[in-house]
Amino acid sequence: MVSTVTPAQTPIDSEPLSPTAFLDRAILAYADRTAVIDGGDRWTYAEFGDRCQRQAGMLADLGVKQGHRVGVLAPNGHLLLEAHYGVLYAGAVLVALNTRLAAEELRYIVDHAGCDLILAGEGCEDLAHAAAGADTKVITAETYERLISESQPYRATPGDERAMIALNYTSGTTGRPKGVMYHARGAYLQALAMTIHWKLADHSVFLWTLPMFHCNGWCFTWAVTAVGGTHVCLPRPDPERVWDVIAAEGVTNLCGAPTVLTSLVYHPLAAPVARPLAVAVGGAPPTPALLERCGELGLNVTHLYGMTETFGPIVLCEWQPSWDQLSAPDQASRRARQGIANLVTTSVRVVDPTGGDVPRDGQTIGEIAVRGNTVMLGYYQDLEATRLAVPDGWLRTGDLAVMHHDGYLEIRDRSKDIIISGGENISSVEVEAALASHPAVLEVAVVAKPDPKWGERPMAWVTLKEDATATPDELRRHVRTTLAAFKVPDDVVFAELPKTTSGKVRKAELRERAARSNTTATSRSLT
Amino acid sequence: MVSTVTPAQTPIDSEPLSPTAFLDRAILAYADRTAVIDGGDRWTYAEFGDRCQRQAGMLADLGVKQGHRVGVLAPNGHLLLEAHYGVLYAGAVLVALNTRLAAEELRYIVDHAGCDLILAGEGCEDLAHAAAGADTKVITAETYERLISESQPYRATPGDERAMIALNYTSGTTGRPKGVMYHARGAYLQALAMTIHWKLADHSVFLWTLPMFHCNGWCFTWAVTAVGGTHVCLPRPDPERVWDVIAAEGVTNLCGAPTVLTSLVYHPLAAPVARPLAVAVGGAPPTPALLERCGELGLNVTHLYGMTETFGPIVLCEWQPSWDQLSAPDQASRRARQGIANLVTTSVRVVDPTGGDVPRDGQTIGEIAVRGNTVMLGYYQDLEATRLAVPDGWLRTGDLAVMHHDGYLEIRDRSKDIIISGGENISSVEVEAALASHPAVLEVAVVAKPDPKWGERPMAWVTLKEDATATPDELRRHVRTTLAAFKVPDDVVFAELPKTTSGKVRKAELRERAARSNTTATSRSLT
Repeated sequence: MVSTVTPAQTPIDSEPLSPTAFLDRAILAYADRTAVIDGGDRWTYAEFGDRCQRQAGMLADLGVKQGHRVGVLAPNGHLLLEAHYGVLYAGAVLVALNTRLAAEELRYIVDHAGCDLILAGEGCEDLAHAAAGADTKVITAETYERLISESQPYRATPGDERAMIALNYTSGTTGRPKGVMYHARGAYLQALAMTIHWKLADHSVFLWTLPMFHCNGWCFTWAVTAVGGTHVCLPRPDPERVWDVIAAEGVTNLCGAPTVLTSLVYHPLAAPVARPLAVAVGGAPPTPALLERCGELGLNVTHLYGMTETFGPIVLCEWQPSWDQLSAPDQASRRARQGIANLVTTSVRVVDPTGGDVPRDGQTIGEIAVRGNTVMLGYYQDLEATRLAVPDGWLRTGDLAVMHHDGYLEIRDRSKDIIISGGENISSVEVEAALASHPAVLEVAVVAKPDPKWGERPMAWVTLKEDATATPDELRRHVRTTLAAFKVPDDVVFAELPKTTSGKVRKAELRERAARSNTTATSRSLT
Repeated sequence: MVSTVTPAQTPIDSEPLSPTAFLDRAILAYADRTAVIDGGDRWTYAEFGDRCQRQAGMLADLGVKQGHRVGVLAPNGHLLLEAHYGVLYAGAVLVALNTRLAAEELRYIVDHAGCDLILAGEGCEDLAHAAAGADTKVITAETYERLISESQPYRATPGDERAMIALNYTSGTTGRPKGVMYHARGAYLQALAMTIHWKLADHSVFLWTLPMFHCNGWCFTWAVTAVGGTHVCLPRPDPERVWDVIAAEGVTNLCGAPTVLTSLVYHPLAAPVARPLAVAVGGAPPTPALLERCGELGLNVTHLYGMTETFGPIVLCEWQPSWDQLSAPDQASRRARQGIANLVTTSVRVVDPTGGDVPRDGQTIGEIAVRGNTVMLGYYQDLEATRLAVPDGWLRTGDLAVMHHDGYLEIRDRSKDIIISGGENISSVEVEAALASHPAVLEVAVVAKPDPKWGERPMAWVTLKEDATATPDELRRHVRTTLAAFKVPDDVVFAELPKTTSGKVRKAELRERAARSNTTATSRSLT
């Protein structure tokens, strides 16, 4: 054996990865293809690229420098999309703000992020002014158009690929939102993974039903551009508009939370799609019933899992050919599994409290832990919270799951949503799926209610489909057909579900209501 | 404006990129799908992954350590493919050897690389023994099967992503071959680019007509695995076998040099394909006539450009929708352009001798220069050659091209192949294309012949199609219909073209023959 030889000192540098490279290339490669459709406006990649570089020029003219934070408060539309390139071209940090928040909440974020400037989209001007501090400049949509037409295109050379390029605040069902720092390397790689997993190409037409201010639209803001696909913008995912646009523009891809998908597929306009439509669903586990309904409409649904801290989807349910042989409900239950790490995510595990792997038995519950290039840099200005979330190099997600023998994970619950009754864990997700399989049920949430005897008992909040009827006892009996008696909710209440601005059910609020509720436990005769 | 804030010190590490991550994931994601077909053998990804990790275990047992070079001398087949993962899993460096070289040539490479060990595929045992130095162990195919069955799976943790993982020797039309050092980062990114540009997915069936020992099969060795496609191995691209296998296995993708493609599409078995077949052609510029013939057979050809120093293809001809309106010959001429940088290549330029960009006029000839993550670390043990090739951070490719106004580049020649006649540059590629457009011509090479009056004059070497006839003057008149008189070759000689083992025409040899030739210049009446 000869001795080890390391590569000679090389005069050839590594180049930093940056998602702006995708637009640099699209300007040449897809010059004449349609980049963006927003209402009556359409721009080619040559035009879109020019607008983004002028946005960077405008920001430079306004004094925005390397590392400055630029807030954008805008619905899904060209302005916010342009900021995904313009702000980065300027060397600054994009803070995409959630338009559904109240002025006070936004003011906290703008102040915490230290935004120099807020770009306000149409209809967001007043909220932006209310959210801005005394030192924060607000540029309205109208002024923006004038300024970019007067600015010169600009493009800073990409720097360190682990530098912060975006700051995304958690929607936080409890507590103050935290600022999740995204690095250019993660955004670049995650965009490539989304491109490959959703088979995006220059013929792809991506409909923005997912807010771009969530994880930068799961990095699809960059992925669609990488392959020269078309971004179709909608300010809100109104089901009627969505079904119209799907037909009119030949939409091939859309994404959203289960609540968005529910509003779509149970809408009167819902009908089997004419052209293949790939739907990525995440943000909360979809029920098997929802997935079955999507199947009826011919939607090709991929279920995925991720969080703000992981640039969006890091786990997805890769279909196994052997599953083709299963019955429809069994297929839906497979599809409801979160699955395996995406192509660029180094590793996803389910760990016990000591950090060791749980057995691959599909039963032992542990916490999902992630490591890799699609994990955030940390929480902005909060090293302590970062260290708590990543105690040993592995990001603890706060989500509880089991690992199946084939390496596919399945979420059982958020750690704070698990119900512990008489020492037994009850997965709220499991009970919700059982309830949702009843034909009258549209949406459901199950939370823990304090109980003097059992510690906690499951309590269900249900919304029925239009014109459908069912009684609490009927639903409880339905749950008992598939689950153990101790998992059947004692209380079933019909009500609207309170939701966060991102469409997640506010379980914390339901838990509070449950604790205050004076419903007496109905007979537990089902035991 | 508030002050710049850099990301806080983070406890979250970046993870090194490595193409072995694709197999790690494929073992879970595509467990039951067919990974490899080689003659009568088929392996699933679960099985293939196990074999690769056992190969790593075998190498560790044999004393191979981090950074050691492992030679593999084998035709396209499972052994060589497994080495693309097993050697890397062992933390070692893969040296995929060209089976068409002579023992002496191989011995130089094995010695220069300092290979500890050679794995010899079927039929290569004798050549491997002849190439091995006294200290180099040779493992034959038979022994290999026994050893991996006895070994434990092994997988070293990936290290620095800029460390050398493979060493690929240039085929060098002149001089000693140089060892091109590949880093893990480049292999990973290039594989993702190949995946996206060729729309590879789990249904893809990739036929190995391209030798895996060329640039590690343009990184398709890793790309196909990343998405769970099937590798179909063929020891040699015999046209008959290729057409058989295309039909039998439902091949969706293949790659090769123009000479390989020529032997396929003019073969008696050639017929329009039943299933879409994407063909990537590179290594030398294909003639428009060859591309037209491919179009007749329904092959979807993408022309690309790259070299060993760039992990294979870095430039490809992305189709523009406006080209759909052009005539067939005009479309073929567009397709013959090399095009633009691939998705992960940072930048490709055409530069003048001072390193500045040539104008985008489609006329001014300059040298192609490349920068980015898909450029080698350098030449092994040859810092001087590395510095010469990369004088200023930009790799000089030695290929001459023009830049069109739309940012697409088109190769005019290798710098040493350009013909300078009476102070005018004549592109040998251009004259070759003109000759190849004659229906009787199968292959052609044009080189400079010393000329007392003009300095150099073009001389053509032509192979005619089977049963076809043409006279030199007929061909010269044909060239004159599209090119200026001074570009028409004075001499047209009918002969077999001498080729390198990689199928490139040995122009250096033809230049020598031209210099020695006693053909007298025919009348230049065409002027």
